[in-house]
Formats: sequence, C-alpha cells, structure tokens
Amino acid sequence: MKPAEPPVSTADAPATAGTKTAATDAASPLRLRRVAIDTYSENVAYLNRDCAVYRAEGFQALSKVEVRANGRRILATLNVTSDPRIVQCHEVGLSQDAFSQLGIEKGQPVTISQAEPPLSISALHRKIDGERLGREDFKAIVRDIAEHRYSKIELSAFVVATNRGELDREEVYFLTEAMIASGRRIDWHERLVVDKHCIGGIPGNRTSMLVVPIVAAHGLVCPKTSSRAITSPAGTADTMEVLADVELPLDRLSEIVREHRACLAWGGTADLSPADDVLISVERPLSLDSPGQMVASILSKKIAAGSTHLVLDIPIGPTAKVRTMPDAQRLRRLFEYVAHRLDLSIDVVITDGRQPIGNGIGPVLEARDVMRVLENHPLAPQDLRQKALRLAGRLLECDPDIRGGDGFAIARDILDSGRALEKMRALILAQGARPFDCERPQLGVLSFEVRAAQAGFVTGIDNLQIARVARMAGAPKVPGAGVDLARKLGEPVAEGDLLYRVHASFQSDLDFARQACDRSSGYHIGVTGELPHVFVEF
Amino acid sequence: MKPAEPPVSTADAPATAGTKTAATDAASPLRLRRVAIDTYSENVAYLNRDCAVYRAEGFQALSKVEVRANGRRILATLNVTSDPRIVQCHEVGLSQDAFSQLGIEKGQPVTISQAEPPLSISALHRKIDGERLGREDFKAIVRDIAEHRYSKIELSAFVVATNRGELDREEVYFLTEAMIASGRRIDWHERLVVDKHCIGGIPGNRTSMLVVPIVAAHGLVCPKTSSRAITSPAGTADTMEVLADVELPLDRLSEIVREHRACLAWGGTADLSPADDVLISVERPLSLDSPGQMVASILSKKIAAGSTHLVLDIPIGPTAKVRTMPDAQRLRRLFEYVAHRLDLSIDVVITDGRQPIGNGIGPVLEARDVMRVLENHPLAPQDLRQKALRLAGRLLECDPDIRGGDGFAIARDILDSGRALEKMRALILAQGARPFDCERPQLGVLSFEVRAAQAGFVTGIDNLQIARVARMAGAPKVPGAGVDLARKLGEPVAEGDLLYRVHASFQSDLDFARQACDRSSGYHIGVTGELPHVFVEF
Repeated sequence: MKPAEPPVSTADAPATAGTKTAATDAASPLRLRRVAIDTYSENVAYLNRDCAVYRAEGFQALSKVEVRANGRRILATLNVTSDPRIVQCHEVGLSQDAFSQLGIEKGQPVTISQAEPPLSISALHRKIDGERLGREDFKAIVRDIAEHRYSKIELSAFVVATNRGELDREEVYFLTEAMIASGRRIDWHERLVVDKHCIGGIPGNRTSMLVVPIVAAHGLVCPKTSSRAITSPAGTADTMEVLADVELPLDRLSEIVREHRACLAWGGTADLSPADDVLISVERPLSLDSPGQMVASILSKKIAAGSTHLVLDIPIGPTAKVRTMPDAQRLRRLFEYVAHRLDLSIDVVITDGRQPIGNGIGPVLEARDVMRVLENHPLAPQDLRQKALRLAGRLLECDPDIRGGDGFAIARDILDSGRALEKMRALILAQGARPFDCERPQLGVLSFEVRAAQAGFVTGIDNLQIARVARMAGAPKVPGAGVDLARKLGEPVAEGDLLYRVHASFQSDLDFARQACDRSSGYHIGVTGELPHVFVEF
Repeated sequence: MKPAEPPVSTADAPATAGTKTAATDAASPLRLRRVAIDTYSENVAYLNRDCAVYRAEGFQALSKVEVRANGRRILATLNVTSDPRIVQCHEVGLSQDAFSQLGIEKGQPVTISQAEPPLSISALHRKIDGERLGREDFKAIVRDIAEHRYSKIELSAFVVATNRGELDREEVYFLTEAMIASGRRIDWHERLVVDKHCIGGIPGNRTSMLVVPIVAAHGLVCPKTSSRAITSPAGTADTMEVLADVELPLDRLSEIVREHRACLAWGGTADLSPADDVLISVERPLSLDSPGQMVASILSKKIAAGSTHLVLDIPIGPTAKVRTMPDAQRLRRLFEYVAHRLDLSIDVVITDGRQPIGNGIGPVLEARDVMRVLENHPLAPQDLRQKALRLAGRLLECDPDIRGGDGFAIARDILDSGRALEKMRALILAQGARPFDCERPQLGVLSFEVRAAQAGFVTGIDNLQIARVARMAGAPKVPGAGVDLARKLGEPVAEGDLLYRVHASFQSDLDFARQACDRSSGYHIGVTGELPHVFVEF
C-alpha cells in the first residue's frame, strides 16, 4: 500500500523527489491520525514499523516520544505496528485521550521524536531511595504528572515510593499544595464555602446527597463536586446521575451554585487537581490508598473547588479502610496538619464503619434510600438518616450564627419539614432531571436472594465482601445492579430469613455475583454479645 | 459496518436467530485476531466497544482479562476500540507477543472474561507495606510474573517495593530461587561448568569474548549465554552478533558446547529465568538496578544456565554502578551469601571502573577491539587484554589441576600462542559466521571528532556520558554506531588533540550525539595528581 504523499505546492516540488534519502524523509512532517483505541489515561503513540522516522531516530522499545504540532506537544509511550490500517508510514497515530489532549485536527502535520525523560525523574529516584523531598521536588513531579509526562510505570513507582510511612507530614503538605497548583482553583467569592467528604470504604453511605440539600436549604454555600466510584460499587456522582445530569461545564455549575447555593456534580470536568486523576488511574488497579496519598487527594480537590470549611468522615470498623482508633487518630492529625497549613478549616468526625450505611448498595438502590430519607418515607433507612443529620449538624455549626450543639436539631428540622427535599428537587431540575419513564435507570430485573443458614443475631457484615458482590453484579457501570440489605448488625434472624437480595441486569453478571456469594455471604450470624465494639466520637 | 457472523452449520441454525439477547450473544465464542501492534512485553487484548461480551461482562477500565482457547489461557490488559479495522464485534484481538504466547491460530474460537487479580497480589501488598516475605510468597509472585499475570503497573510496584534496602539477604535468596524455578534449568552433565559475569556499567569492557575462548581452549566447559544491552551501548550478545549468529535454539547450542566446550550466545531463547526478562522490561525504563534485584537477576540466569563456578566482576569508580569500596564489599557479600545458599561457587573480583575498558564503544567497535586482542594486533587495547587475562586466570583456577596464582600465566600463554583466536574462530563458525562482505555490520560512515579544549592530562572520563553519546549515535540498534576513544586516563594531551571519534549511520543520530557532546564531552582535562584513586583487589 502506497502512503498518500503530504500535499506539496506544484511550483515548489523538487525535481529530485525520487532520490530522497532516509535522513531527508525523516525531516518531512508526518500526518496526525486518531487511533480509536481507549488506552485509559496512558498516552500511546502508534508508528508504522516501516516509517522512515522510526528507522532514523533509532527509537527503542518502550521509549517515550514527544509529539509536536502547532506549538503544542504531548508525551506518549510508543507502540509500533506493521498494520497500515492502524497507521501508515507517513502517519503518527495517537490513542483517544492523547489525541484529545494534543487538540489538533487529524491530518495536520506533526513531528515525533524521542523524549528526554521528565526532569523530575531524578527526584522520583531520590524518593525511591528513601530520601525526603522538598517543596520544589513535589512541584516538579506533580506538574510532570498532570502534563502526562509520566508513563504508567513511573506513576506506579511514585505511588509505591510515597506509600505508607514514606512521606512525612510536611511532604504530604508539599504534595497537596503541588496538586492544587496543577489545575484550576475556583473562587466562589463567598466568605464561607462548606463541604463534606468521607474517606470511603463503607458501602451505601450516601450522606452527601442528604447533607448538601440540608445545609444549602439553611443558606450555606455547598458546591459539592464528587468523584465516580473508584473501587466501590457507587460514588456520589454515580448515584446522583440516576436522578440528574452530573457532567456539567464549570460555568453552568457556577450558575446553579449562585442560584441554589449548592450542586451535586461530578468533579471530572472542572480540572480540579488533575494530577490526582492521573494518580488514581494507577492507585485503582493497585488498590493502594495510603494515608499521605488520601490526604493529598481529598484536600487538594476540596481546596481547588474553593471550600473554606470541611467536615471529614473517617469510618472505623473491622472491614473499613481504618480499622483501629489509633490509626483513625493518626489519620485525623495528618488531615488537620495539612488542612491547617493550607488555611482550610477542618472538622474530622470518626464514625461507626462496622457495616454498610443504608440498605441499598449500587447507584439505583442508593438513590432510592436517599430519596426515602428526604421524603420521610416509612422505609427510609434510619442509620443513613441519623448519620446524615449528625454530619449536617456539624457542617451547620460552621455558620457563626449557630451555637455549638444546635446544628443537629436545625438539620433535623430542615429534613422533617420537607425543605431538604424541596432543595434536592430544585438541584435535580437545575442540573437536568432524568425523565422518569425510559431514560432513568431502573433496578436490575434479574435477582437472587441470600438467606440465613442458621438462626441467631447478625454479628458481622463484611463491607468488602458486600461491595465485591455488588461490583460483580455490575455496579456502578450497570446502575440498577447491586445489593439490597434486609438485615443489619444486631438484628435477630431465623434460619432461612432473607439477609439480602442481589440485583443485576445481565445473566453473566448475576452468575458472577452468585459465585462471590457462594464463596462468602459477607454475613456472620452469632450471638448478641459478639458484636464488634467500636469507639466513635459522637 | 456489519460484522461477519461466525460460520454456523445451516442445519443447526436456529429459527429464532433474530431474537438473540445480549446474554446469549455473550455466550457465543469470539474469534481470535492478531493485532499487529508491538506493545513491548505487556499483553494487550483489544475488544470492540460494541462487542456484546464487552457490554455483558461489565468490563471496567484497565481491568485485566483472561483469554482462553483450546485449553490454553493468557492474561492481558484490556484496550477498547471503536475501529472495526482493528477488531470487529465478534473478535478478540491480541497484541503480537500475547498472540504468540497463546499459540493459537487466528480465527479460532476464544472466550474472554474478567480475570481475578493474580493470587500473589496480596503478597505484593504486604511487601509494599514493608513486610518481610517468605519463600512461598516469592514463589507465587515470581510464577505470576513469569506467566505474564502482572500488569506493567504491578511489575513496577514490585520492583520499587523490593528496591534498595527493602529486601534482606534471605529474601534475595528466596527471590533468586523462585526466579530459577520460573523457567528451564540446563544440566550439562559436567562436573565443572564455569562462567564469568560483570555487573555492568562500564562502556566497552568486552572481556567475556576473550575469557570464554581462553578457558575453553584450556578445556573448561563455558557455555556463555548473554543478554543484549539493557541500558548500555552494547551487550556481549550485541557484539558477538557482529561476528556470528547468537540466536540459537537450545539443542543447537548444546551441540556446540559438546563439541567446542563453549558458546557465546544470546540467552533469550533458552527460557532461563524468564521472570527476569519480564522484570527487566520495567527496570529498564525506570533505570532501577538495586543490589537485591541485581543479585537475583544475575545468579538466577547463571544457575539456570547450569553454571557451577562463577567469576563475578564488580567495577568501582566515580561513574560506575558501584562508587565506593564499602558498597562494593556489601554487594560482594550479598552475591556470596546467595550463591552459597544455591551451591554456586563464586569468586567476586572488584576491578577498576574509573573509565571505559578498551577503546571502542558500540557493537562493531567492541568486536574490533576483541579481535585485535585475540590476534595480538599492535593496536590491541592493553587494558582490555590485561583485564581479560586476569579474569580468565581466576576462572582457570577453578580447575583443581591448576595451582592458585598460576591462572594468569596460563591464560596469557593461551592468548599469545593464538589458541584463543583459534577457539574463537571455531565458535564463530559453529554458531554461523557473518559473511564479511555485505551482511557483516560495518562501522558507521558518518562521524565527527571531539578534541581537547586545553592542554593537560586526562583526569576523568565519565562512563555515563560516553555511554550516552554512543547510544545517541545509535548503538546498539545500529551496530556500526559508537564512540572510538583515542585517549585514556592519565595520558597527556595538547590543545586540539583528538579525544574520541563518534560514528553513526544516520544523520539525525549523528546530530543527537553531537548535541550530547556539546553538553558535555565526558572528558576532564587537568593535572596528573587529580587522578581519582581506586582501591582494587588485584
């Protein structure tokens, strides 16, 4: 197959075009092509093995390349192909994300060359060797990460080298500060911008969708931007998306906040702490979530989003992310130290993380629980209601007009009176409500039940196993998939009583979930006295 | 574009074919396709975004998938495409290496499903958390690595978590043992099988191509399998390839060793410590080479290749891999400990690594130096000759019939008499000599010279910078590219004297090398007394 020649003006066409050498070939520009492959946050450039440039530049396996066009440039990992249908000899292909990042039309001239390693790699090596890094080191590393200059291998090296115990608290502060600087920082021009956040790990637990309408109904500004689920069966953004659009451009989001004092949106479009998103693309498959990375990730997003006051929820329990009170206290102090250095007022609340909060696990089921609480429905899960009221109360007390201790009662009044429901409805309409009939996701029609093998009391519910079953059933990608709990800790069960129901939309997902349940139901049935004891602050 | 239906027998075609659901679609097998993309040691599977299986299985970004066919299976990272020219809806594409590993014809039915994470990931997490791992942990991890069950991200995590100071010496022993067990182990049925190895980092330094013919001429069995260059401008395999074939199947290699007592081959075809090759694919781009990984890599390859006695060369110098005598001694003890546990007799020699050994750097230039020494040519580099004789002497003393201290003189006699040259010629012929006229690689025709900017003495030659210049010039991929040194440490120079000449085969490579030289020539010219002092054992 003969590659199409780049267009040349006839007047300028050299008479010796047929005698070009490899070296001059290399100098002629290649054409940009979009390769419709989703490589998930790693930029990949594709070159044809017979491309003169590939030959002349002496590219080595796994080398990083720099693709330049029109004053812009990106770094990418090189893949080489011999298939001209992917890229021809005169083309440079870019994977989907890389193509969007470069932001150049296809067919435009581009040049490609071996990239020097990112300058911050020497700092990465010092961290791998166990050295303490300074502010400028973190700035350089995080800037290179946000600009996609790190390969997945280098990202993974950074995440492991800064894991557990490898960062002291000042380094966590430097990292957080660098992550804030890597993206946009929103200024709401308000004296008080409140937010709440949970470190995660507890299935269900959709308190944000209650806290936000409550505090906004009171009049506090609470522009909540959430992530999608990373390793869990649903994030706040996934659950809110059952009810309303969450992918809003920043100017629309600002309008909504100005009018309604709040939003419940996905933060991915706002360019807040973009380095965090790149790091998460590696932390997720590695299932790593060290204290330093957690603090930097959460606080950088909150501060970039313009928050001035944050209530932070750290659940503890035998299958929570944090398992002991000393660990929780250590994490609390780290959050407080970094928040203080960055002028964020933080109120850390250590909560009961021994079991899921609410009954539903999975986007549709969690949205149901949230709406039942807002509607004061008789089937509303009381644990979700109580926890949301307590967190909302703490957040309300950021208002200097509210006396310490009065927050809970005010929050309860806002919820019971229907003002929180009214605020939620306004937010849903403002963001773009899902029409009820067809587009709105429904509960998965396939299901099976898990029942108690013996009589007794529920003495343990394994957060991790319940989350695993819900994920196997398809959550969060299939919004109607998930687990609906019928019994919670401490409740009596007879043999054969329903423990939970699993919902799925596809037979293969249901089979996966059933296999997971067969290995372990996640429930422990015993006698009352065995209940795991947890110290919680409120 | 309508995807081609997999062939079905007309007699069996169901009348309800038009009403198939997504779930039954998912159950019908997909067809295997080879995607001509070289992804460098990472298995990648390609699915079409519209594939029913992709939809039904709820695949998540970056998830690992298992591809099964005909009783075989491999793990791969999933990339998703919307381009039917890469894969159609009824196909599973595999990148080149992954396709070869599966070993199934294209068009055959295959199934694809989400893979459970490798079982050893929990051990990896314990290592990341700083725990000490046991023998079974290392076995499980290394087996999963050799079977390509680890993604690049996980490999990178392992390499960083086991870096510098993170492995104690017993863990290094466990790792080495597990790496040996991950592949084939050759038994030569000889009482004494000798080998020599250098930890690397010194440009030139092609002593193996002299030591092997000398000790084989004496009658010792020395089946040398070498790697290609990893981060250097030439490895022994790259240099030997200038003269002879080095990619030999194991049975041919065995024949050669039986007849000639030696070989100088590339080890990549022999399935020796395959986990090492996978780890190197990550260590190379990270430029990581910790003591534990180095010991496990070198000793596992040597023991798998059937060696009983090893002479190991650790060069020290200000720009060598090992920079101080205490570091060299610590590394020596680690080599000795692990070798002892694995019944390998080891003789560690700490050598002068202050500058390149020999004059030429790059495959063709290094082959020239080696042949000049063997031919007792007047231009033969004396430092290469002396070092090779000393190492060969140490290796000869493994022979119980040779008195300690006599090895050097015997080695010199074998070299001076031409018996080593004769042996080398026999090995070249046996492995398959390159015909001199056309196929044999020639020195690059493009060149430039680097000259002294001032008069004085050569007081420093930077191994790293000289290697960088040679790589920029195209070595080892372009065999005729490299650096030819005209001055060595301690020699006097007048202003304008030639320091070295750079050779390349392509103009762009030459330009890259010139830029590197402009940043730093790698030479330091000063007064005699400044010469860096090095303690060496012999």
